[in-house]
Amino acid sequence: MMQRIVYMNGSYVAESDATVSIFDRGFLFADAVYEVTAVLAGKLVDNKGHLARLERSCKELGMKLPVSADELTQIQRTLIEKNQLTEGGIYLQLTRGNEGDRDFSYSDDIKPTLVLFTQQRALLDSQAAKEGIKVISMEDIRWRRRDIKTTSLLPACLAKHLAHQAGADDAWLIENGLVTEGGSSNAYIVTHDNKIITRPLSNDILHGITRASLLKVAEDCQIELEQRAFTIEEAYEAKEAFVSSATTFVWPVVAIDGKTIGDGQPGEIAKKLRSTYIEMVLAFTQ
Amino acid sequence: MMQRIVYMNGSYVAESDATVSIFDRGFLFADAVYEVTAVLAGKLVDNKGHLARLERSCKELGMKLPVSADELTQIQRTLIEKNQLTEGGIYLQLTRGNEGDRDFSYSDDIKPTLVLFTQQRALLDSQAAKEGIKVISMEDIRWRRRDIKTTSLLPACLAKHLAHQAGADDAWLIENGLVTEGGSSNAYIVTHDNKIITRPLSNDILHGITRASLLKVAEDCQIELEQRAFTIEEAYEAKEAFVSSATTFVWPVVAIDGKTIGDGQPGEIAKKLRSTYIEMVLAFTQ
Repeated sequence: MMQRIVYMNGSYVAESDATVSIFDRGFLFADAVYEVTAVLAGKLVDNKGHLARLERSCKELGMKLPVSADELTQIQRTLIEKNQLTEGGIYLQLTRGNEGDRDFSYSDDIKPTLVLFTQQRALLDSQAAKEGIKVISMEDIRWRRRDIKTTSLLPACLAKHLAHQAGADDAWLIENGLVTEGGSSNAYIVTHDNKIITRPLSNDILHGITRASLLKVAEDCQIELEQRAFTIEEAYEAKEAFVSSATTFVWPVVAIDGKTIGDGQPGEIAKKLRSTYIEMVLAFTQ
Repeated sequence: MMQRIVYMNGSYVAESDATVSIFDRGFLFADAVYEVTAVLAGKLVDNKGHLARLERSCKELGMKLPVSADELTQIQRTLIEKNQLTEGGIYLQLTRGNEGDRDFSYSDDIKPTLVLFTQQRALLDSQAAKEGIKVISMEDIRWRRRDIKTTSLLPACLAKHLAHQAGADDAWLIENGLVTEGGSSNAYIVTHDNKIITRPLSNDILHGITRASLLKVAEDCQIELEQRAFTIEEAYEAKEAFVSSATTFVWPVVAIDGKTIGDGQPGEIAKKLRSTYIEMVLAFTQ
């Protein structure tokens, strides 16, 4: 299999040579942020939003991006070209850097570590999109700043692993009786009078870039929307349920905790949002 | 400066060669656990407790230790010898491993990554122990499984950084009005009738190995102890306050949020616990 070419701090290297020091704060402390941008037809999807959120994550944590957003975009495009990526995603991780030893403290002028790599994957022709996914609910045990996209992803890994063990595809997370989000996605339901319900932005959830785009799509399609938290019981009784993320776009949810949602088929509004969003990004991607 | 010799998955390598793949789950997901064992006079302090906690962390997360506790101890001793370590600590990190790409999901037979390195540092002759430290309180925003010693340490790094910016040495974390623990330590106060108060074990705090030893020391010294949560206001009014961890042993806390604790000097009980613990470990270390 051909090796991927990976970006590492200014160089393009074979993936087998892509290593970081064990003293990197990304490895020792999860002192790192990340973004994933989808690629369709060789082009970046909603990338401006991802880079803007990356800048926000950095600002919240006092980290500095070593390159500009324009330079990042150029790196992403170079990786697409070098890896002949047509469909999938580009992963970007920025760590606070490496001061040569392990110490919780850090200096303000530490040089960050920047890594990007590609992942080839079918996004449009997706079984999950066609048939919908099954989720199970569980307690949301993550830290309180889920609006910052850090690599502290062990709770998400555990949630997905538990879901898979239970025969489901993913988790929906619950805090104080209310759904926060999916294992790595924003969560939505549709009421029987065709209103989309999704939790409003706060520190409790990731500020999804695809979420922001979908809310505009819903407005364009004149679908009613209410931003409020909902209970898992409300979700059981919903007409539809779905999730969104950068590389799944929209995936219908057809069962929650073993309970069939609606008629057990992907819902009309989820399908409409997915197709309209994909049409839009194929027309306007960078 | 002489390079440290570091243990990496079965090999002893120069620290500049100690690298992990960017696809290691420790780097991408903070899917990793760790331990720090203090070293005094070239010997391991309370190491059995640390290795037992490591096994517990692994069990909670479904991770497998690639070597036995005895083999780990042998690796630690080899590192002490190779690095001529007399005083300081040995850091151990185990990640779930690397399956060659980024995916939240993982297989159950993934081969873990094991890294250990030494840190030379004066532990006995410590200014913080002699003069005490100043802490400031802040909201505890960590995930809900603080009993598992994972590398999701960004909240601790941020807390310490904020404390340093405020001219303090460390943070005390507060949840629902009650102190959970220090930035990387367990927290204690002493009442005016000489009773030690510390939070009982639960998922809310790390199950400190030094904490367990100190509670035995307190018992041996016939110092009264009550395991319950306390408020930060109670701490302001305490006769003494202190913290414990593997490499600090006991450090008195002489100010909290700018308020002087007791007479502003290290307290008698904190000093007694520290000296008795150190005597004990110097007599019995492996």
